[in-house]
Amino acid sequence: MAADWVTVVSYDPFMIGVAIAPKRTTHGMIKKYGEFVVSVPSLEMLKDVWIAGTKKGPSKLKEMSITLIPSKKVKVPSIKEALANIECEVVDARDYGDHTWFVGKVVDFTYKEEAFKNGKPNLKAKFLAHLSWVEFVTFSEEIYRAE
Amino acid sequence: MAADWVTVVSYDPFMIGVAIAPKRTTHGMIKKYGEFVVSVPSLEMLKDVWIAGTKKGPSKLKEMSITLIPSKKVKVPSIKEALANIECEVVDARDYGDHTWFVGKVVDFTYKEEAFKNGKPNLKAKFLAHLSWVEFVTFSEEIYRAE
Repeated sequence: MAADWVTVVSYDPFMIGVAIAPKRTTHGMIKKYGEFVVSVPSLEMLKDVWIAGTKKGPSKLKEMSITLIPSKKVKVPSIKEALANIECEVVDARDYGDHTWFVGKVVDFTYKEEAFKNGKPNLKAKFLAHLSWVEFVTFSEEIYRAE
Repeated sequence: MAADWVTVVSYDPFMIGVAIAPKRTTHGMIKKYGEFVVSVPSLEMLKDVWIAGTKKGPSKLKEMSITLIPSKKVKVPSIKEALANIECEVVDARDYGDHTWFVGKVVDFTYKEEAFKNGKPNLKAKFLAHLSWVEFVTFSEEIYRAE
């Protein structure tokens, strides 16, 4: 599925959280397997992100052009086309309002070399950001240094 | 303080979460008052964001050029220059690794009219994004529609 609400929650140990509604098929799968992978999409993946976010159930994979590949540490797959795949083991699940907040310890990750240069995102890889329901953007390539 | 790790966690009721390290002065203040405001900075506010994120304690306010103004519902202040101020009452605080995850119910908000047009962010307002420790970017103005 496509998930908008995700962030790092701890640096050491490295942990991330993601909010997922109970009605989502993914919700039941995370509960069942205790693992998840957060894949970081590029602008090129927009069509697949849209299908993943608006259609229900595993059958949507037939309409998508992503390639599922084995992850390094977890049983659930990664996405070959993604800029990065962050492999997580669930350490907590809390219900807040209409979503469940899943927190995962990052146990491994893979990434495209061209998407991360010198230890930071390479904006030429066009990381995807969500502007409104049907609208998406990427980041401007001009960099501003704080000092 | 400047906080990178923040996201919506529930749509209805509207709730957001933010990760804050226990060593931060802000951590103790949220614990004490049970309220916080998440202010959304623009690229114009970069210098102030940098000071807020790298210096410690309330005295840093003297070096900053932000204007603290009363919030609508909570006792803690909002920032006049921010693109938006999201007023929250703490509903949960959970320790994950080296940060505390504060979840707040959004009780009110204010925003700059020019920063949100037709119910969505206006990218001309130059929302600030964090690229690496000292580097910041904003969003490209070209919009891609998913369908």
